[in-house]
Amino acid sequence: MRIGVLGTGGVGQTLAGKLAELGHDVCMGSREAGNEKAVQWAAEAGEHASEGSFADAAGHGELVLNATPGAVALEALRAAGGERLAGKVLIDVSNPLDFSNGFPPTLTVCNDDSVGEQIQREFPDARVVKMFNTIPAELMVNPRAIEPSHTLPLCGEDDAAKGEAVALAESLGWPREDLLDLGGIAGARGMEMFLGLWVRLIGATGNRLVTVKVLSA
Amino acid sequence: MRIGVLGTGGVGQTLAGKLAELGHDVCMGSREAGNEKAVQWAAEAGEHASEGSFADAAGHGELVLNATPGAVALEALRAAGGERLAGKVLIDVSNPLDFSNGFPPTLTVCNDDSVGEQIQREFPDARVVKMFNTIPAELMVNPRAIEPSHTLPLCGEDDAAKGEAVALAESLGWPREDLLDLGGIAGARGMEMFLGLWVRLIGATGNRLVTVKVLSA
Repeated sequence: MRIGVLGTGGVGQTLAGKLAELGHDVCMGSREAGNEKAVQWAAEAGEHASEGSFADAAGHGELVLNATPGAVALEALRAAGGERLAGKVLIDVSNPLDFSNGFPPTLTVCNDDSVGEQIQREFPDARVVKMFNTIPAELMVNPRAIEPSHTLPLCGEDDAAKGEAVALAESLGWPREDLLDLGGIAGARGMEMFLGLWVRLIGATGNRLVTVKVLSA
Repeated sequence: MRIGVLGTGGVGQTLAGKLAELGHDVCMGSREAGNEKAVQWAAEAGEHASEGSFADAAGHGELVLNATPGAVALEALRAAGGERLAGKVLIDVSNPLDFSNGFPPTLTVCNDDSVGEQIQREFPDARVVKMFNTIPAELMVNPRAIEPSHTLPLCGEDDAAKGEAVALAESLGWPREDLLDLGGIAGARGMEMFLGLWVRLIGATGNRLVTVKVLSA
């Protein structure tokens, strides 16, 4: 599949790298084509990898992953262009973390709104699925790094789009029973607010590779 | 031990009931002594149970549990009186849930502050420990209702106070290895923001008895 990955940070590199390794045709997008990190990534990731602007990556992808920081996600998606996102599954991996006062960060939006909702409102023709924002990048592409199993929440307005996101997660090694659909895109509020706890779990466990398993009676 | 439980709702009743059953001398506090629910609870809970005003319950307790709704917790604690809380372990179980726009609720405070911190700031001589707010009441007193194990986060400024809170949790059946100390009271931000996700887990699982286990690599 042709996939666009917006963002050149650790999350973008990890997702784009694994997806290219699985044989997808991946274009990594950044503010301007020729971004040093993207060029290096594309050179190392082999024949399925390319890079370009946000618009190039969005236009390239049949499916698009937003791996930019949440605080600049809307700006990145405006640069990508709503017309290049229309009708496509847009998996929003971002978190609105604000590190301006150090660690642990606060969120730039939360409680009665979320980045996931902001994106869906501004790009109503994109089929937004919030997924992968609750876990470290390494786990996105290698869920078995933590045994025995843990939970991957997702949400969005479009059931077929969520089905495509689930299929993508399964191709990355996620057992279907570990995926938990929280319903509509407003579920992104909960998924992003979870970061308030998650950043503190890192401190408490002394381990960046930390996540949760949802359990019920 | 003499314990004061502030609040007559489901959380207060569940905690007070179990603690009285374990032989503690429990006084349930409410806005005014003679509260119908508190009187009924005390009558049914036996010889170790009594009821009174917030001030009565706080004065009674060597240890105090705040099980009032987070949005009115400060008001309840002002009525209890700082002088009756001074030097005591005050376990804050509350969540600042705002149901005025229906379910799922938003929070009345979050992100850069929390009820736990507000309480510690206003009552600097109380030894505040945030604990039990991340789980349903049934689990607080019966952790094995969900197998095999799950996580109870806690935080606070006073290590000895956290030690007393941990001992109380252990007496309620919590294995020590399931308790996770998040550090200072600012960890309450994360523990309260988790509610944004938790309320949606109830919807997604169709089960009110839902919680999480923290896992790391």
